[in-house]
Amino acid sequence: MRIAILTTGGDAPGMNAAIRAVVRRALSFDWEVWGIERGFQGMFEDDFHRMEHGAVSGIINHGGTILKTLRCPGFREEEFRRECYRKLKQRQIEGLVVIGGDGSLSAGRAISLETGIPISFVPASIDNDIAGTDETIGFDTAINTALDAIDKIRDTATSHERVFLIEVMGREKGFLALAVGLAAGAEIILVPEIPFRTEEVLAQFLEGRKKGKRSMIAVVAEGAAEVSTLAKEIQAGYPGEVRYSILGYVQRGGAPSARSRRLAFLFGARAVEALAEGKGAVFVGLEANKVVARNLLDTCEKKELDQESFRLAHILAA
Amino acid sequence: MRIAILTTGGDAPGMNAAIRAVVRRALSFDWEVWGIERGFQGMFEDDFHRMEHGAVSGIINHGGTILKTLRCPGFREEEFRRECYRKLKQRQIEGLVVIGGDGSLSAGRAISLETGIPISFVPASIDNDIAGTDETIGFDTAINTALDAIDKIRDTATSHERVFLIEVMGREKGFLALAVGLAAGAEIILVPEIPFRTEEVLAQFLEGRKKGKRSMIAVVAEGAAEVSTLAKEIQAGYPGEVRYSILGYVQRGGAPSARSRRLAFLFGARAVEALAEGKGAVFVGLEANKVVARNLLDTCEKKELDQESFRLAHILAA
Amino acid sequence: MRIAILTTGGDAPGMNAAIRAVVRRALSFDWEVWGIERGFQGMFEDDFHRMEHGAVSGIINHGGTILKTLRCPGFREEEFRRECYRKLKQRQIEGLVVIGGDGSLSAGRAISLETGIPISFVPASIDNDIAGTDETIGFDTAINTALDAIDKIRDTATSHERVFLIEVMGREKGFLALAVGLAAGAEIILVPEIPFRTEEVLAQFLEGRKKGKRSMIAVVAEGAAEVSTLAKEIQAGYPGEVRYSILGYVQRGGAPSARSRRLAFLFGARAVEALAEGKGAVFVGLEANKVVARNLLDTCEKKELDQESFRLAHILAA
Amino acid sequence: MRIAILTTGGDAPGMNAAIRAVVRRALSFDWEVWGIERGFQGMFEDDFHRMEHGAVSGIINHGGTILKTLRCPGFREEEFRRECYRKLKQRQIEGLVVIGGDGSLSAGRAISLETGIPISFVPASIDNDIAGTDETIGFDTAINTALDAIDKIRDTATSHERVFLIEVMGREKGFLALAVGLAAGAEIILVPEIPFRTEEVLAQFLEGRKKGKRSMIAVVAEGAAEVSTLAKEIQAGYPGEVRYSILGYVQRGGAPSARSRRLAFLFGARAVEALAEGKGAVFVGLEANKVVARNLLDTCEKKELDQESFRLAHILAA
Repeated sequence: MRIAILTTGGDAPGMNAAIRAVVRRALSFDWEVWGIERGFQGMFEDDFHRMEHGAVSGIINHGGTILKTLRCPGFREEEFRRECYRKLKQRQIEGLVVIGGDGSLSAGRAISLETGIPISFVPASIDNDIAGTDETIGFDTAINTALDAIDKIRDTATSHERVFLIEVMGREKGFLALAVGLAAGAEIILVPEIPFRTEEVLAQFLEGRKKGKRSMIAVVAEGAAEVSTLAKEIQAGYPGEVRYSILGYVQRGGAPSARSRRLAFLFGARAVEALAEGKGAVFVGLEANKVVARNLLDTCEKKELDQESFRLAHILAA
Repeated sequence: MRIAILTTGGDAPGMNAAIRAVVRRALSFDWEVWGIERGFQGMFEDDFHRMEHGAVSGIINHGGTILKTLRCPGFREEEFRRECYRKLKQRQIEGLVVIGGDGSLSAGRAISLETGIPISFVPASIDNDIAGTDETIGFDTAINTALDAIDKIRDTATSHERVFLIEVMGREKGFLALAVGLAAGAEIILVPEIPFRTEEVLAQFLEGRKKGKRSMIAVVAEGAAEVSTLAKEIQAGYPGEVRYSILGYVQRGGAPSARSRRLAFLFGARAVEALAEGKGAVFVGLEANKVVARNLLDTCEKKELDQESFRLAHILAA
Repeated sequence: MRIAILTTGGDAPGMNAAIRAVVRRALSFDWEVWGIERGFQGMFEDDFHRMEHGAVSGIINHGGTILKTLRCPGFREEEFRRECYRKLKQRQIEGLVVIGGDGSLSAGRAISLETGIPISFVPASIDNDIAGTDETIGFDTAINTALDAIDKIRDTATSHERVFLIEVMGREKGFLALAVGLAAGAEIILVPEIPFRTEEVLAQFLEGRKKGKRSMIAVVAEGAAEVSTLAKEIQAGYPGEVRYSILGYVQRGGAPSARSRRLAFLFGARAVEALAEGKGAVFVGLEANKVVARNLLDTCEKKELDQESFRLAHILAA
Repeated sequence: MRIAILTTGGDAPGMNAAIRAVVRRALSFDWEVWGIERGFQGMFEDDFHRMEHGAVSGIINHGGTILKTLRCPGFREEEFRRECYRKLKQRQIEGLVVIGGDGSLSAGRAISLETGIPISFVPASIDNDIAGTDETIGFDTAINTALDAIDKIRDTATSHERVFLIEVMGREKGFLALAVGLAAGAEIILVPEIPFRTEEVLAQFLEGRKKGKRSMIAVVAEGAAEVSTLAKEIQAGYPGEVRYSILGYVQRGGAPSARSRRLAFLFGARAVEALAEGKGAVFVGLEANKVVARNLLDTCEKKELDQESFRLAHILAA
């Protein structure tokens, strides 16, 4: 059997570990594996290269993706897709593994519907915003990276007795913000899913100050508020110093955590096994701590934020 | 309500985060919380002190336990226990939270059976060797600590083209070794649960070398083999250089990972809520990614190593 | 002898290690040591407390400062200072150790001139922008923190084949930017001391791209350019994707590096020894790898950026 | 000009950064650069390969050495050396850069004396045990790695109220042990250069315990004592628990610290510049914070441990 593999969308730590798992598992079946560079763009441009055992040596602990990645709006155009499919056909690809985020899911579905080529989708995203899996590859690493940064900022917050607003990634979903805020013991967590009023946030800071807290931290998902504006608004009513910090791209990189590597390992292997089993189009995910391979074309219910943890985090930090 | 809390057995990263969660959750119910120093030894010696909100400030990211811990063989003696119970009674403790490892479980059960005081047991252990929970507080941190060390040793292994045997903790169980070995991409993983012969290990190294691998790594649980002896035996039949390293106590310490803090947060809060609900004697655990509070007196089936992952790890690294 | 100690200005990792060194060295002479909270503000408010051996236990590896710190513009007013001096006199302080940055230097000099109280100044700053010492406490830690972040961003830059502009601290001086850029292998380093034109920067990126470089990094001191504007300008002329990231406050915190702790150790001890020797007003610094205690009232030549390293960094990364 | 470069002896973090600096600096002169694999063994076996700009891309932050390294006792034999020189001649090598530790110094001198080929020696060693330079490439990284491990062990030491003996590298020299112990705030530091009696060490622990210290740490250079034996001897007279840990090979690996990369940058470039200047045989080093290129054939005075810091570390931790 001859399969191809690509990474697409925003990069996430553990993508390399997943590539390794896919390649090695496929080779264990004596398959031929072709890597596609820069996601669908490379498919379009016929940028395929053969991957042997050594091609994935020494990458398990590297952030990013050796196959490169691109957000590829072109794929929404039929013309572009048709060219891609032509390349898959010319290369006689009999199975495809797509490692990517939420935005790549519809691409995966389109390929399956429009070509019938068996496809395994492996969810990798630092945002954990993909329905159908409890956790995505890279999420755990991003939490730890952000947490490490906040632990550092806490040092300076405490020394200067300041309030700090810290923006973490998450435009539409607050999974990362909640996980980080909870682990950091943040006094306040703001997520896109749960509306808030600035006065409430200010009131909480004022109450904390009244209780004797001199330094406090709010973790803010980028989609929840414009953090520089929010800082100004809070500052207007808060007697101490208010500062903000945007963690930014650093959250995407770094050596994957053990857990991100473990998911990469399990998902990558399962993706190949699903192809071996002739499953057609599958979505590999984690459900109740078990790896599952569900039908890629089934729609899953939207994944919801754990409101109970959200509530509890505020109680414990109050 | 007046409750007491103690940590016992080997320390694990996240114990402090668990203490914080217990204290803060209890205070949110307006309870009185008493910390006991040095586990059951401190109970015996009446070393109790009142814990308020501020007592657990700034500890969420610290390894170890501010309540100190001791392995306490004395607790097996009836005389000792009776003295402990006297102290609990004198102090009018109406609920007890015990944070500890496998060895403390029977102590928790004894207290429940012999005093009837409601008790919540929170499993914390870097070994993850406690039946009844998929994961213990501290396990994820220890995996990452060991992994970080192995990533470093891999540098020198590669530069010198050496085989390295690396001992990680785990006297009776290979959970840590498997998790670490899998994430490190170790060529060989040795665990106490799965017997092996030295010749087989040697044969695998020789085969790897024949395939062109110049540096290889074996992760060895301390209970699987005496690593210095094993290194000597492998060296006797291996043409390249063989070295070993024992990671040791470093695996117990360090800032808890996000996941260890999360479990601490969830378990600690649940432990208190179980007391609030009048559950009697509970064991708080993670099951299929959900926090559960089961009857502490129920015996759980032994937790088994994931043999499929074990097998797969060797396939991918071969 | 009775001395007081305070930290002032922006916090820097290693301040706690310096406090420990000062307190312990003073106690080794059987002196009395008083800690002042929140810098000169605490002096003004008479916020002194006695420090014994245990007061500095377990802080050597913590970022920030247990004595807290404040930028204190009030100290420029004579009235404020007079009140401070009254407190020093009432408390019968016979020697003062000031740990702080460039802005605190003149405060130190004022105290010496206006009160005659012996004073030892210990330079601590993540910017390394204090003349009279080759290196300040905290500088090495900040370099490593920024470097770690850039190593992470490099992962995503490479995966997405992007150009990244990364802002590090340094409003007036490029010491941090140069050290970080050099260690990160950044293609371009921009510092306040060396003017540049945007077209030149763009030209270098274009040339790099022509040579086959798909991802490149510029390290930009905050005083050298407004990084979001610069990114827009570069993007206007650059065919690939350009992104920017502001590292921000994370650079101030974290466990001090070995070197920052070593300087803290050496400087702190020397500060006390200078008081013991009756030196009057001293500035403790590192000069040609030796700890020196020079006259605090002497003005030092401005410290210059190492232009040769600057030039060389660009040659090696070109 | 055509030069060759090799790494030899024990690997040290920053060797890759040094290789990068050498290659890039040489290419900036339009020279030809040849990498030799596995040190002198590769020279003997004619294992040379051409290195272009891209050969050293993306390695600045990797531990180990891409050129591999071997301790090579064969080089002491005339026959072996003659074969090596033949290869250098056949390859028309006009300059050689040797990156290595103390043991490679005599090899470098032999080559210079026996062939007259210009040679630049770059000291890289985690032990910092090379006379003629204040600091070696890799030393700062190893200190920080060991320090990080000890910070972790301190967590468990404190929680269990134990005394810990921690062995760090250093068979003949205590530079690493002193630097680590000082930065860790270790109560006791044992180095090969300064004899001690076990009773004294025990007495210090007992005195610490009398003062209220429940957990203490001794940093022990491997050449100072057999740490397992010492632990047993201390335990025999100490009422609390005594444990030991051997940090081992982890100290060799890991991403180089900023400072190790900086030295690599400066030394590597200077090594090439010395060849360009026709200096003959040079040793590149750091002296009073300046990079110097001295005559390789000059013998330097042995580098001495800073006894004053040693004494002071014990005073501050007492």
